[in-house]
Amino acid sequence: MIFKIVNSGEKVKKADINSLEKGNYEKFSRSISEKALRFDLTVPFARYVSQNQNNISFPFKRYQIQPVWRADRPQHGRFQEFFQCDADIIGNRSLWQEIEMILLYDEVFRRLNLKDIKIRINHRKVLFSLSLLLGISDRFIEFTNILDKIDKIGVDGVIKEFEIKNFPKKAINKINSLIKFSGTTLEKLKFIEKIFKGSNEDRSGLDEISFILKHIAKTNLKSSTIDFDFSLARGLSYYTGMIIEVSPPVKIKIGSIGGGGRYDDLTSKFGLKNISGIGISFGFERIYYVMESLKLFPEHIKKHTEVLFLNFGNELISNIHHEISKLRKNNISCELYPSKDKLKKQLGYANKKSVLFVVIIGPEEFKEKKFIVRNMVSGDQLIFSIKDLEVKINEILKS
Amino acid sequence: MIFKIVNSGEKVKKADINSLEKGNYEKFSRSISEKALRFDLTVPFARYVSQNQNNISFPFKRYQIQPVWRADRPQHGRFQEFFQCDADIIGNRSLWQEIEMILLYDEVFRRLNLKDIKIRINHRKVLFSLSLLLGISDRFIEFTNILDKIDKIGVDGVIKEFEIKNFPKKAINKINSLIKFSGTTLEKLKFIEKIFKGSNEDRSGLDEISFILKHIAKTNLKSSTIDFDFSLARGLSYYTGMIIEVSPPVKIKIGSIGGGGRYDDLTSKFGLKNISGIGISFGFERIYYVMESLKLFPEHIKKHTEVLFLNFGNELISNIHHEISKLRKNNISCELYPSKDKLKKQLGYANKKSVLFVVIIGPEEFKEKKFIVRNMVSGDQLIFSIKDLEVKINEILKS
Repeated sequence: MIFKIVNSGEKVKKADINSLEKGNYEKFSRSISEKALRFDLTVPFARYVSQNQNNISFPFKRYQIQPVWRADRPQHGRFQEFFQCDADIIGNRSLWQEIEMILLYDEVFRRLNLKDIKIRINHRKVLFSLSLLLGISDRFIEFTNILDKIDKIGVDGVIKEFEIKNFPKKAINKINSLIKFSGTTLEKLKFIEKIFKGSNEDRSGLDEISFILKHIAKTNLKSSTIDFDFSLARGLSYYTGMIIEVSPPVKIKIGSIGGGGRYDDLTSKFGLKNISGIGISFGFERIYYVMESLKLFPEHIKKHTEVLFLNFGNELISNIHHEISKLRKNNISCELYPSKDKLKKQLGYANKKSVLFVVIIGPEEFKEKKFIVRNMVSGDQLIFSIKDLEVKINEILKS
Repeated sequence: MIFKIVNSGEKVKKADINSLEKGNYEKFSRSISEKALRFDLTVPFARYVSQNQNNISFPFKRYQIQPVWRADRPQHGRFQEFFQCDADIIGNRSLWQEIEMILLYDEVFRRLNLKDIKIRINHRKVLFSLSLLLGISDRFIEFTNILDKIDKIGVDGVIKEFEIKNFPKKAINKINSLIKFSGTTLEKLKFIEKIFKGSNEDRSGLDEISFILKHIAKTNLKSSTIDFDFSLARGLSYYTGMIIEVSPPVKIKIGSIGGGGRYDDLTSKFGLKNISGIGISFGFERIYYVMESLKLFPEHIKKHTEVLFLNFGNELISNIHHEISKLRKNNISCELYPSKDKLKKQLGYANKKSVLFVVIIGPEEFKEKKFIVRNMVSGDQLIFSIKDLEVKINEILKS
């Protein structure tokens, strides 16, 4: 799904026509392309860490926000160009990092004024131990891939697919009871512990989830609630520990707005072994969509021109233009109407652009060293001395 | 110079092998590509204005900052991927907009703490009238293209090229005297007015330059000086009025860091005629380079972790982790050392990362409800009550 760039100029001469004729389009495409669009940030990050391992103090934390491109079919909430926003901590196995990542999500959403966010967590080892317990560990990848479809096809759809794929009846019944179980995270922990009771399967995943949930319970999440979700699987095979996925408020239909997890072996293919890390992503475009749907973008970012100076000719403007510069230095959004049009046209422009106040210094006013400020909503006009312009406009805008 | 993207999957079947064999690489490339990388922001802007002409209030102002790509040979200060930063005002001919664009450059550079910027202006009509006066108007484009090389080949190189290209001797002498003339902008204005004296050529360009310079002289430029530069031509053929180019401080060798001008006909090819506009660009990467060379990036953007909490085990951390969250809410950059390593290793990490202060709450301290804060530079340690942690850390960081 990588977007390839056609070689420039003569370099396309190398085109492998033979592969084209044989229908090997991938090989043909590679023969005329040496560059491609950035596909993701994770692999370059792993390479960076491996190449700079001697200059980095571990645990190494980094965030990165950059556009990436996928030659995918565009869908609602799935774009060919999007911003990947990643935060990773690499080089340490401490579970406090899982906790901090959850707090990071919560704090970011709090600052964005988002509420009712659901942070779902699960653990790869819990899923694997479960597959052992259910006697389906030889079909582990298939098992998680089917589970992963729950957002799309629902619980019943998932159960049906397990049946179609001939998973053992007993296993399906257990899966069914697990994913249909509702209760607090504590009740869920107890329920799954009961399932493992008496078995010899590895419980380290469960212990980790329990540690994380226990400590999160002591913090005061502001924008989100946390849920232990047995059905969360997350497709990416490099996850080895906690996995995490973030859902927007229920009424917004856009899929998950964040996700991540712990990986134990991301850097090994670049020669750095036994380095554990945890990473999370924010779904930039989807979060934007959620905020827009909920009208959460603050008013001031749509700020209009606050003050428009009307134009009564070059001579007059040249005497007062420095006042505009002064207001701008006060961070007042300020415009000069550029030409000496009829007053009606100038005021029409102010209205169309929702300008708040208009400053009028015509020949009369200038002679008397006065200016008029007109409130474009109420139509009220006040007159002050030009020498007080900066102070008065500041006062009016603050009131 | 557009980067083309190879069609995905089977869509490369349409490859025009015939053109490839004939050596028509451009046609071949187009046959396997339907998408391309954004080449610039100006043409899309012109299209936007034309398509939305009925919903836009003119004069329409916009700025736009986006990456663009050029399949050019990369050179010092010339990149294949770079950020275009544009500001345009479209829909009005008022020269106050030329003045405001100059003030915009000056204000942006002031905020970036840049000094000794040179803003050079000229006028397309001045150049054209001059070409008429010198009897070389039939070779106007060639005339401006040679002038444009002055930064690369110098004044003498330019004169030599006029000679090689057989421009009339008399014209070359006039050009030579013009581009070698040094003096204030006022003296330059007088000099060129003298050259035009007695002729019938259009002087509107000169009048406009004069108006702009007169008003700029009344403002107080903070970061830049303005120069009327007869030799400035700017290659882009769509300019029709004032042209502008910005040079960094003399000692920085990176070419111009901004440029633009007035255009009278940008939107006509999208069906909107007789709309005049003015646009300027900031050379983002080059300005970055200048600021880096002059060490102008402020210290605080390299801010390190201010406070590191040492780790004496999960039990202790779980009792104090909320203190870390509290400090973070105070915008204090705060870290927890993730695992219970030896004290030496934890302090070593703090040193390597240039952490300012370390908070120590070991079993002893916790029992006594105290914490130690250690200044990592001086090695000084202070002891306070844990209940005062937030206040004390704030005090210490502010002092």
